[in-house]
Amino acid sequence: MPDIPPEESMPSIVALTSCALQQGVAAEISQFVYRRGGKIVDYEQYVNTNEGRFFSRVEWLPADPDSTPEATRADFVRELAEPYHMEWQLHFQDRETRIAIFVTREMAHFHDLLVRTLSGQWNAQVVLMVSNHSDLATEAGRFGIPYHHFPVDKSNREEQEARQVDLLQQNQVDLVVLARYMQIVTPVLIAPFANRIINIHHSMLPAFVGARPYHQAYARGVKLIGATSHYVTEDLDAGPIIAQDVAHVDHRKEPERMVTIGRDLEIQVLARAVGLHVNHRVWIDRARTIVFD
Amino acid sequence: MPDIPPEESMPSIVALTSCALQQGVAAEISQFVYRRGGKIVDYEQYVNTNEGRFFSRVEWLPADPDSTPEATRADFVRELAEPYHMEWQLHFQDRETRIAIFVTREMAHFHDLLVRTLSGQWNAQVVLMVSNHSDLATEAGRFGIPYHHFPVDKSNREEQEARQVDLLQQNQVDLVVLARYMQIVTPVLIAPFANRIINIHHSMLPAFVGARPYHQAYARGVKLIGATSHYVTEDLDAGPIIAQDVAHVDHRKEPERMVTIGRDLEIQVLARAVGLHVNHRVWIDRARTIVFD
Amino acid sequence: MPDIPPEESMPSIVALTSCALQQGVAAEISQFVYRRGGKIVDYEQYVNTNEGRFFSRVEWLPADPDSTPEATRADFVRELAEPYHMEWQLHFQDRETRIAIFVTREMAHFHDLLVRTLSGQWNAQVVLMVSNHSDLATEAGRFGIPYHHFPVDKSNREEQEARQVDLLQQNQVDLVVLARYMQIVTPVLIAPFANRIINIHHSMLPAFVGARPYHQAYARGVKLIGATSHYVTEDLDAGPIIAQDVAHVDHRKEPERMVTIGRDLEIQVLARAVGLHVNHRVWIDRARTIVFD
Amino acid sequence: MPDIPPEESMPSIVALTSCALQQGVAAEISQFVYRRGGKIVDYEQYVNTNEGRFFSRVEWLPADPDSTPEATRADFVRELAEPYHMEWQLHFQDRETRIAIFVTREMAHFHDLLVRTLSGQWNAQVVLMVSNHSDLATEAGRFGIPYHHFPVDKSNREEQEARQVDLLQQNQVDLVVLARYMQIVTPVLIAPFANRIINIHHSMLPAFVGARPYHQAYARGVKLIGATSHYVTEDLDAGPIIAQDVAHVDHRKEPERMVTIGRDLEIQVLARAVGLHVNHRVWIDRARTIVFD
Repeated sequence: MPDIPPEESMPSIVALTSCALQQGVAAEISQFVYRRGGKIVDYEQYVNTNEGRFFSRVEWLPADPDSTPEATRADFVRELAEPYHMEWQLHFQDRETRIAIFVTREMAHFHDLLVRTLSGQWNAQVVLMVSNHSDLATEAGRFGIPYHHFPVDKSNREEQEARQVDLLQQNQVDLVVLARYMQIVTPVLIAPFANRIINIHHSMLPAFVGARPYHQAYARGVKLIGATSHYVTEDLDAGPIIAQDVAHVDHRKEPERMVTIGRDLEIQVLARAVGLHVNHRVWIDRARTIVFD
Repeated sequence: MPDIPPEESMPSIVALTSCALQQGVAAEISQFVYRRGGKIVDYEQYVNTNEGRFFSRVEWLPADPDSTPEATRADFVRELAEPYHMEWQLHFQDRETRIAIFVTREMAHFHDLLVRTLSGQWNAQVVLMVSNHSDLATEAGRFGIPYHHFPVDKSNREEQEARQVDLLQQNQVDLVVLARYMQIVTPVLIAPFANRIINIHHSMLPAFVGARPYHQAYARGVKLIGATSHYVTEDLDAGPIIAQDVAHVDHRKEPERMVTIGRDLEIQVLARAVGLHVNHRVWIDRARTIVFD
Repeated sequence: MPDIPPEESMPSIVALTSCALQQGVAAEISQFVYRRGGKIVDYEQYVNTNEGRFFSRVEWLPADPDSTPEATRADFVRELAEPYHMEWQLHFQDRETRIAIFVTREMAHFHDLLVRTLSGQWNAQVVLMVSNHSDLATEAGRFGIPYHHFPVDKSNREEQEARQVDLLQQNQVDLVVLARYMQIVTPVLIAPFANRIINIHHSMLPAFVGARPYHQAYARGVKLIGATSHYVTEDLDAGPIIAQDVAHVDHRKEPERMVTIGRDLEIQVLARAVGLHVNHRVWIDRARTIVFD
Repeated sequence: MPDIPPEESMPSIVALTSCALQQGVAAEISQFVYRRGGKIVDYEQYVNTNEGRFFSRVEWLPADPDSTPEATRADFVRELAEPYHMEWQLHFQDRETRIAIFVTREMAHFHDLLVRTLSGQWNAQVVLMVSNHSDLATEAGRFGIPYHHFPVDKSNREEQEARQVDLLQQNQVDLVVLARYMQIVTPVLIAPFANRIINIHHSMLPAFVGARPYHQAYARGVKLIGATSHYVTEDLDAGPIIAQDVAHVDHRKEPERMVTIGRDLEIQVLARAVGLHVNHRVWIDRARTIVFD
C-alpha cells in the first residue's frame, strides 16, 4: 500500500454547474448540501461578469452514505437545476472513471497513465486498450489489461470506429484517452463520446506545418517546445484546451533530443489533463474550458 | 498616450472581505451592489472549507459616480460588515495608491516600478523616495520625484525611522516598497505600516546562510535561483509571501552572472507583488496571503 | 553609482567564429590570445557534429590595452580567419553598442531598454528614437534622447525608410530595436541592417491568424501565452529566434489582462534578446541562432 | 517495439575528462578519436577560465566495433590521460547501466524509472529493488524485478547496509537510486558507491525545518514548491545537485494537494537526474556538477 493517500478517494459527490448569474444561486447550492447534513470539502466558482454567467464546482461528503445516486440526482434536478435553468453534472466519487487508452506503438504515455491508476493516485481504472497495431499487446498483458487490435486504414475507418464504439459502450467506458494514437478519428467515434475524448499533441512556436516538426523547429532555432492536451472535436486539434506547457531547448538539442524532450513533456501535460478530468475539475464552455484547479 | 489602456483604471470600487462561512453571504455581497444599480466587473471568492472561512474580492462600477466613499463605506458597514462579522477593506479605484520607494544605491528596481506608474499601467503614483545614501538623488530628480536622504546606522536607526514615518504620513503614503533597501527595519516603521510594506529578496534552494549567497550557490552547483516578495513583519523575511519565481541556471553561470540574473528576477517578482497590491488583489490571512489573481 | 557592477564592462575583446571542423582550431584560437599575453575570461564553443561545423565565442582581456582594434583585427584575419576559412566577428567591449529604438505609442518596452542602458547593466547606449507618431517625444526628452518623427503610410514607406537609414548611419547605429513598432519594414531598411534589427511579438499556441489574437486565445481557452524575439528578415516574423518564453494563464484572465501579461512577457523576452546581442552572445547560422549564454 | 528510437542506443563511447587548461588538449582529444577512424557524434566542453580548468564530454562511434574496451581504455590512458594529467571516465554505451532502486512504500517513483528502462528510452536496466518494507514486493514481481527486503532500524543499520553492499556488488550494480527511500544511509553504503547514489527530496522556499513541510509551506502561503535531485554524500542532503525544478501553487492548494503536486515534480526531477547520469552527462567537480546537457 502506498503511504500517500489517494488524491481524492473519499466517497464524495461533485456537482459542476453553469447558469445565468442570479441572486442567491451560490447560496442555494450550499443550502442543497447543508439541508441534507453534508459537509462541503471544496467550493470553487467562476463568475464571467462580462457575460453574466455563473460556474461552480462543489464537492461534498454526504451525511447519509446510503442515499442513492438516483435519489440525489432527482433532488438536484428538482431543487437546483430546474429552478435555476442550470447546465450541470453530478459525479459520485465512489464510482471509478473507466478509461480506455488508444495507442499506436509508443508505450511511455500508456505506462504513465496506467501507473497513476494502479498506484491509487486517481480514482480511475484503465479497462481496455485499443490499437491499430498489435505491438503493445504483450505490454498490456503484463498488467492484465484487455488489448483490442483494430487495424484501421482509409477504407475501413468508420466501420472500425463503429465497432470500437460498441466495445467502449459494452465496457461502460467514461473516458477515451488518445495516447499518441496516430490515426484520424471521425464523428462516428467522437459523437457518442463528445467531451470525453482527450488528445495530446506537441505545439510549436511558431506552428510548423508539414512533416517532421521537430526538424523544422531545430532549423528555425526555436527556444521552446510545447505540448497541448485538449478534448477532441470534429475540427481537428481545435477542441477545448485542458492543459499546456513548454520545455526550454537551445541550439545544442538535435532534433532527436527534442523528440525525447517533447515526449516527456507530452506525458506530463497529458497526465495533468486526464487528472483534471477524472477529478471532475473541467467544465467545457463552448470552445474553452473552465478548470477548477 | 499609450495605446494599451491602463490595467484597471475605471472608477470602480473593490471590496475585500473575510468572514465565517455563512448562508447567503456571497448573495448578500452581490445584492449590496445590485441594490445600488452597480455593475459587478470582477468577482472572485475562496472558501477554506477546512476552517469554514469565506474570502472574496468584488469589483464593481457604481451607478452613481457621485456617491461619496464615505456614504458607501457607511452603507457597507451597516448592511454587510456588521451583520456578517466581516473583516473588510473598501478601495475606491479613482484614488491612486501613493507609493514611497526605499532604495540604497541600486536603481534598476526603482526604475521599473516608476515606469509602471508613469505609463499608466498601475493606478498608482510614486510620491517620494527614501534612501540611506544620496547616490540616486539625481536619478529621482530626472522624474521629479522628491528624494529624502536619511543616513542610518545602528545608533540612529529608530530615530530616523520615526522621522521617516512622519514624512510618509504627511505625504499620505499608502504603500512602502523596499526596492533593495539594504537596511534592517524596526517596529518603529513597521507598526504604523503593517501589511503595507513590501520587500523583495533572493531565495535559494537550498537556503544559504551567511555572506555571498550567489557564490555559495555557484559552489554548490544549484540549477535554480529564486526571488520572493513578501509583506514585512517584525520577524525578518518571514512575512506573508505575495509572489515568488525562479530562473534556471547552470554551471556556466559564474556568480557575477547569477547576480545579474537574480536581479532581473527580483525586479519581475517585485513588480508582480506590487501590481497585485495596488490592484487590491491581496488579502492577508495570518501568515499567508490569499491572492485573487 | 549602482552597487552591482555592470554585467560585462571590462575592456575585453570578443571573437565569434564559425568554420568547418578542423584539427586544432580551438587550440589556435586560444594560442592567438596567449601569444599576445591575453587572459581568456570566457570560452564557449559548439560543435555541430552532424554537419562538421565549429562555432565559438572567446572573450579575453588583452595584455596591452593600447593595441588598436585595427591591429588586432588585421592579426586575427591573417592568423586565424584566413587559414581556417572562418566566418568571424570581433567586438571591442570598450566600444558601446549604439542602439536606435523604433516605437509607436507604447512606452513600457522603450523604458525598460533605456533603464538597462542608463543603469550600466549593458555596455550600450540608446542614441535615438524613431516613431511614426509624435506621442512619445516628451518621454524621450525626459531622458535627453533625440526623437525623430517619421510619419509612415503605404504611399511613403520606402521613402521614409531610406531617410531612416541615413539617420541611422549618420549616428553610427549598431542595433535597431523594434519595440512594438507597429509598422511593416521593407528591404530598404532591412538590407543595410541585416542581422542587426531585433523585433518582439507575441506567440500563441496554437497560432491565431487575424485580428485580436488575445481575444481569440481567450475564446479558445489557452493556458499559455508566449513571446518571441527574433532578428528581422524579409520574410515577416520568420527570422532567426533569439529568445522565447511563456506565461501561464487560466480562464479567469479576461483578454485585457492577457494583454497586460503578454506585454510584461514581451518586455522580458525583448530585454533578454537585446542583452544577448549587446554582449555579443548570438551567432546567426542560416535561419537559426547559436546562443552562447 | 516503440516507434521512437531509444535516446542514445548506438554502441558509442563517451569520454568525460577534466584537466588543467592546456594548449591543444581539445585537439588531442579529437585526434584520439580520428586516429582510430571514429566519428564524433557529440562534443561539449566547459572551460572554467577563473580556475584554468578544462572539462569535456566527447561521444563517438568507433570505426572498429570489435575493438575491446580494455584496449581502448589502455590507449586512452597512454595517449591522453597520462600526458595531460586528466581525471577521466570512459563509458561504453553497449553496456547497460545496472540500476538498483531503493524504495519504502511509495511506488510512483519506482514505476516511472522502470518504465523508462523498459521502453528503451534509457540504455539501462533495473536489476533489483531494495526496501525496508515488504509492501512493494508484488509490484516488483509484476515486472520480474528481484525484491530484497532489509528491515532497517537504528540498531542494525550499518550491518544491513553491509549486506546491501554485498548484494549490489554481486549484481554489478552501477547506480543506486533512492526513490523515496525513507531511511538515513551511512558511509557503509555511501563509500563504495561514491558519486553513484542519487537521491530526490522536496525543496521549499524558504526552507522549512521540522515535520510536515507541506503544511508549513501552506501556512506560510508559499507560491512555489520545489524538488532537488543530488548525489548522496555523507553530509546529508548537501551532495552535488544534478537537477532541480519548481511547480507553482496558490492559496487554494491544500497541503494534501501540495503533496501530490510535489510528488509529481519529484518524479520528473528524479527522472531528469537519472537520465543525465545514465547518459554519462554529469561530471562531479567538488561540491558541484558540470552537466553536459
